[in-house]
Amino acid sequence: MSRSYDSRTTIFSPEGRLYQVEYALEAINHAGVALGIVAKDGIVLAAEKKVTSKLLEQEESAEKLYHIGDNMVCAVAGLTADANILINYARRVGQQYLQTFNEEMPCEQLVRRVCDLKQGYTQYGGLRPFGVSFLYAGWDHIHGYQLFQSNPSGNYGNWQANSIGGNSTSIQSLMRQEYKEDINLEEACAMAVKFLGKTLDNNSLTDEKIEFATISKDEEKGRMVCKILRPKEINEVLTKCQSDAQPQSERA
Amino acid sequence: MSRSYDSRTTIFSPEGRLYQVEYALEAINHAGVALGIVAKDGIVLAAEKKVTSKLLEQEESAEKLYHIGDNMVCAVAGLTADANILINYARRVGQQYLQTFNEEMPCEQLVRRVCDLKQGYTQYGGLRPFGVSFLYAGWDHIHGYQLFQSNPSGNYGNWQANSIGGNSTSIQSLMRQEYKEDINLEEACAMAVKFLGKTLDNNSLTDEKIEFATISKDEEKGRMVCKILRPKEINEVLTKCQSDAQPQSERA
Amino acid sequence: MSRSYDSRTTIFSPEGRLYQVEYALEAINHAGVALGIVAKDGIVLAAEKKVTSKLLEQEESAEKLYHIGDNMVCAVAGLTADANILINYARRVGQQYLQTFNEEMPCEQLVRRVCDLKQGYTQYGGLRPFGVSFLYAGWDHIHGYQLFQSNPSGNYGNWQANSIGGNSTSIQSLMRQEYKEDINLEEACAMAVKFLGKTLDNNSLTDEKIEFATISKDEEKGRMVCKILRPKEINEVLTKCQSDAQPQSERA
Amino acid sequence: MSRSYDSRTTIFSPEGRLYQVEYALEAINHAGVALGIVAKDGIVLAAEKKVTSKLLEQEESAEKLYHIGDNMVCAVAGLTADANILINYARRVGQQYLQTFNEEMPCEQLVRRVCDLKQGYTQYGGLRPFGVSFLYAGWDHIHGYQLFQSNPSGNYGNWQANSIGGNSTSIQSLMRQEYKEDINLEEACAMAVKFLGKTLDNNSLTDEKIEFATISKDEEKGRMVCKILRPKEINEVLTKCQSDAQPQSERA
Amino acid sequence: MSRSYDSRTTIFSPEGRLYQVEYALEAINHAGVALGIVAKDGIVLAAEKKVTSKLLEQEESAEKLYHIGDNMVCAVAGLTADANILINYARRVGQQYLQTFNEEMPCEQLVRRVCDLKQGYTQYGGLRPFGVSFLYAGWDHIHGYQLFQSNPSGNYGNWQANSIGGNSTSIQSLMRQEYKEDINLEEACAMAVKFLGKTLDNNSLTDEKIEFATISKDEEKGRMVCKILRPKEINEVLTKCQSDAQPQSERA
Amino acid sequence: MSRSYDSRTTIFSPEGRLYQVEYALEAINHAGVALGIVAKDGIVLAAEKKVTSKLLEQEESAEKLYHIGDNMVCAVAGLTADANILINYARRVGQQYLQTFNEEMPCEQLVRRVCDLKQGYTQYGGLRPFGVSFLYAGWDHIHGYQLFQSNPSGNYGNWQANSIGGNSTSIQSLMRQEYKEDINLEEACAMAVKFLGKTLDNNSLTDEKIEFATISKDEEKGRMVCKILRPKEINEVLTKCQSDAQPQSERA
Amino acid sequence: MSRSYDSRTTIFSPEGRLYQVEYALEAINHAGVALGIVAKDGIVLAAEKKVTSKLLEQEESAEKLYHIGDNMVCAVAGLTADANILINYARRVGQQYLQTFNEEMPCEQLVRRVCDLKQGYTQYGGLRPFGVSFLYAGWDHIHGYQLFQSNPSGNYGNWQANSIGGNSTSIQSLMRQEYKEDINLEEACAMAVKFLGKTLDNNSLTDEKIEFATISKDEEKGRMVCKILRPKEINEVLTKCQSDAQPQSERA
Repeated sequence: MSRSYDSRTTIFSPEGRLYQVEYALEAINHAGVALGIVAKDGIVLAAEKKVTSKLLEQEESAEKLYHIGDNMVCAVAGLTADANILINYARRVGQQYLQTFNEEMPCEQLVRRVCDLKQGYTQYGGLRPFGVSFLYAGWDHIHGYQLFQSNPSGNYGNWQANSIGGNSTSIQSLMRQEYKEDINLEEACAMAVKFLGKTLDNNSLTDEKIEFATISKDEEKGRMVCKILRPKEINEVLTKCQSDAQPQSERA
Repeated sequence: MSRSYDSRTTIFSPEGRLYQVEYALEAINHAGVALGIVAKDGIVLAAEKKVTSKLLEQEESAEKLYHIGDNMVCAVAGLTADANILINYARRVGQQYLQTFNEEMPCEQLVRRVCDLKQGYTQYGGLRPFGVSFLYAGWDHIHGYQLFQSNPSGNYGNWQANSIGGNSTSIQSLMRQEYKEDINLEEACAMAVKFLGKTLDNNSLTDEKIEFATISKDEEKGRMVCKILRPKEINEVLTKCQSDAQPQSERA
Repeated sequence: MSRSYDSRTTIFSPEGRLYQVEYALEAINHAGVALGIVAKDGIVLAAEKKVTSKLLEQEESAEKLYHIGDNMVCAVAGLTADANILINYARRVGQQYLQTFNEEMPCEQLVRRVCDLKQGYTQYGGLRPFGVSFLYAGWDHIHGYQLFQSNPSGNYGNWQANSIGGNSTSIQSLMRQEYKEDINLEEACAMAVKFLGKTLDNNSLTDEKIEFATISKDEEKGRMVCKILRPKEINEVLTKCQSDAQPQSERA
Repeated sequence: MSRSYDSRTTIFSPEGRLYQVEYALEAINHAGVALGIVAKDGIVLAAEKKVTSKLLEQEESAEKLYHIGDNMVCAVAGLTADANILINYARRVGQQYLQTFNEEMPCEQLVRRVCDLKQGYTQYGGLRPFGVSFLYAGWDHIHGYQLFQSNPSGNYGNWQANSIGGNSTSIQSLMRQEYKEDINLEEACAMAVKFLGKTLDNNSLTDEKIEFATISKDEEKGRMVCKILRPKEINEVLTKCQSDAQPQSERA
Repeated sequence: MSRSYDSRTTIFSPEGRLYQVEYALEAINHAGVALGIVAKDGIVLAAEKKVTSKLLEQEESAEKLYHIGDNMVCAVAGLTADANILINYARRVGQQYLQTFNEEMPCEQLVRRVCDLKQGYTQYGGLRPFGVSFLYAGWDHIHGYQLFQSNPSGNYGNWQANSIGGNSTSIQSLMRQEYKEDINLEEACAMAVKFLGKTLDNNSLTDEKIEFATISKDEEKGRMVCKILRPKEINEVLTKCQSDAQPQSERA
Repeated sequence: MSRSYDSRTTIFSPEGRLYQVEYALEAINHAGVALGIVAKDGIVLAAEKKVTSKLLEQEESAEKLYHIGDNMVCAVAGLTADANILINYARRVGQQYLQTFNEEMPCEQLVRRVCDLKQGYTQYGGLRPFGVSFLYAGWDHIHGYQLFQSNPSGNYGNWQANSIGGNSTSIQSLMRQEYKEDINLEEACAMAVKFLGKTLDNNSLTDEKIEFATISKDEEKGRMVCKILRPKEINEVLTKCQSDAQPQSERA
Repeated sequence: MSRSYDSRTTIFSPEGRLYQVEYALEAINHAGVALGIVAKDGIVLAAEKKVTSKLLEQEESAEKLYHIGDNMVCAVAGLTADANILINYARRVGQQYLQTFNEEMPCEQLVRRVCDLKQGYTQYGGLRPFGVSFLYAGWDHIHGYQLFQSNPSGNYGNWQANSIGGNSTSIQSLMRQEYKEDINLEEACAMAVKFLGKTLDNNSLTDEKIEFATISKDEEKGRMVCKILRPKEINEVLTKCQSDAQPQSERA
């Protein structure tokens, strides 16, 4: 009987815990890792693809990174089907704001709306929590570049660098050691590649196993550009980073 | 008590698994196999019929392959009644799009809509997941020929070749070995016949046990043709393929 | 605990089975048998009445065969009360189609609508599956004479000859041996009588224990006639068939 | 665990039975018996009153027989409160038909409507079946005098003579032996008295323990008369029948 | 497991019983007794008050007897809060009838409406039966003085004398022995006092422990008067009856 | 199993008890005591505050006594949050009446409305009873000063003196001994102080532990005044009463 | 079985307790502490941040303190996601009041509305209580500076000083010893710092671990100012307080 506290989102255990939320987090721990780093002049998101097969359509199938609006992109860890529902919701909320106020929705406001939806699934009967964590990278006029992390409970936080998914704990401790506030986007990318390299099984990172996205200002067009990199672009980043990283790791 | 995590879609197990979704996948493993292969100039879907009886109406009763729109066809593995509901839904969604925008719905958008519906059945109380996997073959102006695979969880992926149902694992490993990107539709058909031949019990493939569908451009009419083959046409493909396959298997 | 998978339609068992649907099929196995045979020039449905009493109103009480529309008739095996609900639904759907498009609904479309309703009762909470199987005999302009069989799961198939209910397995094996495609309606009737005679307890078939329906073209009126035979007519068929059957069974 | 199949209407047992419906029938077996007999020129319903007390208001309190419309009367066995709900429903349905089409609703159509309602209570969650069986005696232009029997499952049948409630099995076997089709209403009444006399505890039938209703044509007024007999009238029937019955039983 | 049939109104036990209804009746057996007697020229209701305290407001607090309309009064046994809900309902129903047809609602019709409501609480999920029995005393133009008894199942009956609550069985047996049809209201009151006196613990009946109501024709005003007696009036009745009763009990 | 009757408001136990209602009463027994006494010229309510801390805002925080309308005040024992909901409801109901009829709602009518709401929470599924008892003190034109007591079951009674909460039983027995009908408000206050003094742990009553409210006629303004006393006023009452009480307790 | 009382908000335990509410309080005991102190000329709220990481965005992420309106701020202890929902609700309620009446909503009224919502989650099925306690600091024209504390049960109280969360008991006892009513805001801040210093693990309070908010009158602008301090401002307060506190702790 003592174990029945874990079968519904609508029960607190005697210690005040919501087991279903913790089990949903467990589902996320089996997912590939994703990380995000805020730099002075942009943000980088990087994620590990778990399903890799040469039969997968490379060009089209983003598995971990999704556009939410013109100034926002997110990384996903957990059940992809659950993530789709929430991303749809986020996009719709963002578009409604854009349509009403004629400007992009502030990032935190959007993140909060999605989190409020998530919270509901931890409190009402006949539902299970969404089995998915997010890293939202975004930019708005008020707070500039921002990185939010949210989880199945509906909590969220504003971070300078964070990670979600399988190896997130070890990446987070690497971040605490090595993150510096005044890096630029290029250094942030290098750092992302380095962190992934240390935690993934094989050291050789390839465009088949990694997804990348960046937000930065396109100086020419004078506006934010938020792009998910194609395999070829990922390869460029990887080779560039790895050649740079070599001396770094020697220094280490 | 520890086994009660498997009785509702609204509970995560302590390991973060949704047992009902996994059990639905088990239902699909008892179904006949279906496979799809993308070629340069078209896509082929092939499926094994499990219920065969000379009393079945041959001409009319497609058991595994269904038209969704003018440019899309899908193969089904699992509970046929569940599949009917989803195919109806897909057709309705596609028609609404066509009516609104006066062009065929992009394939991925359609697949995603169906998958979002499926996801809901894994999260809300008083429901069971749909016990059916799909292979969608389609063509649209943006991405050309595409093959999507989806399952009861509501996940989907974009593949160059994949299979669902009973013997899908062995067919998938054959695919990984033998699939080449630059094949044409005829070679893809031959490959499909070969793969089915290796996994079905008796090597002699007949029009009673196999269903075939292709999407390709009809050069004369200058538009896509998406057709489910009639028994006679299947026989032609089979005899052609088997005569071709003979030397191939010798070479192997 | 391991047996609790069978108590709700909304749970898959670990083997991917829906026990409630299988139990509903069990209910049907206690019902009287019904069979249908497609001939070149018509279809015959025949069914065994289980409740027989000389106190029953003979003329009026069809127990197993029901008109659905002008071109369609169905045989029922299972819970009569459940069947009534579905037949009402089928009639209403058919009439709505007729009213909208001014022609009889194509048979398969009608069958499918009823089956979609049935499927819902296997997927949503707080419901049990309909405990009834159907044989639909119909005719439409597109596919001519058709025979559909459906069961509690919501599956259906297009058959040339099939049977449902208590002794359906043995009748089906008889059908596989003796059915020929080019028979005419008269021969189909004889075959139906023969099959029932072999499976029912007492060999003496009477109008109290058998119900008969046929669909055929009335050449004079130039339109389809779909009729459920009255006891007197059944007797005529029986005596005619049995006198014919005698030599046949000698030949056998 | 194996006994839990009997606790909900929404579960089939592994043998395909609905235990709750069977238990509802059990409730009916504790009720007083009621019977109906169709004659050439009318129908008679007779019922045994279980609650008898000289403190009961004799004139007004029909316990077992109820008018439904001008041409229809029914006998009830089971939970009276449940019966009231269904009789209200039947009356309302009948009145709506009368108002719409300006003629009495055909008997079977009315019976069927009530049975469809009953069926719903055997299939949906959170409900129990109606614990009541009915004998409907009616007359319409199409089929003349008719007697329908229905039970908690929602099944119904068209009978020439039948009975429901406590001793119905023994009365039914008496009926099978003695019922003849060409009797007139007077003989049917006598038969009813005789059957009740044989099954009730004490042979002396009184107006306190029996209720009677008849439908017949009032030749003078030229229309159907459907009446529930008052105690005095019942006594007349009883004395008349018993004096007639004496010689009959001697002949037997 | 075998005892779980008693936990829901929506389950029949294997013997066809509804335990929750029987348990509700048990609640009523703990309540004070109430009785009603129909006389030639009126009806009397009398009830035993269980909660007696000199701190209770004597004048205002009717605990067992309530007006329903101008011609109707009822006695209650069971949960008072449940009774309030039903009395409100009865009053509203009666007023709506009065407003629509401009005459008092016939008694049985009103009783039936309340009973239909009660029945629903024995058949639908998530509810418990009303834990209250009623004695309705009323008068209408059609049937004159009437006394109805109803219980938690929704059954009701038309009686000349009956009682509900704690000692109702013994009072009912007294009634069967002593009730005569041609008594007048005064004799009925005396009878009521006598019956209560025999069943209550202490023989000394007081206006603190008894409530009284009568319906009779006020000959002067020429209309029905339906009044609940005040303590002083009760005392008058009691003293009058007890002085009369002395000789009666001697004769007994 | 036998103890499961106590887990839902929708089940009667075999003895006809509603355990959840009894458990709610248990919650009230842990609350501070409250009492009310009707005098010739007013009513007094007094209550014991359980949460006492010098950090509490003294002036503003009534914990046990609440205004309902201009002529009504109530004392609460039990869950404060539950009480708030019911007090809100009572206020709204009272205001609607005032607005509709332009006079204060009669006390009993208002009390009854709140009790009907309470009753619903003891009969419908998915709810728990309100864990709170009330003492309503009010005045209206019809019945003058009135004191009602209600509890979680939805029962209520009209009392001259009563108490609710923790020590209510001992206070009630004191009341039965000492209450006299013809006291004036001042004597009633003294009596209230005396009763509280005898039951509370420490004899020294302070304005921190006691709340007081009175309803009486303000002779100058010629209308009812219904006031909850401020700490200073309570102190005045206490000192006045205690100096008076001294001789009384000596006489005792 | 005896432990099942703790699994639903809709059950009282036999002792009249709502275990789910108590478990929710347990969740709050794991949260960081928050405290509030009312001074003559303002209120101070202070809270301990549990999640501290140099990777967190310092400027933007208030974790424990939130604005509700122009004159109100609150501190939170418990599940942040639950708190967000309630804060949204409070803000919306406050804005609606402002819009309707053109003045700030009185503090207690707003607090009460939020508490009523909370109460509902402790009484209705299929929900769990909100796992969050609040300290509301506010100012309105009627009662000036006010501090309310509320918890998952929906109870609230008006305090001069109080605390919620992990170490609240020890802080409360410190408050009882040291709080004086006539302090000014500066002294209240010092007191807050002192209390937090005594209960937190390491004595060295930093702007990373503490959040501060004050409400006071801006004499220049002549209106209330309600501000959440930025890290730099917190540091100023801390250094100021600690230098002041030194002598204080020596005096102690």
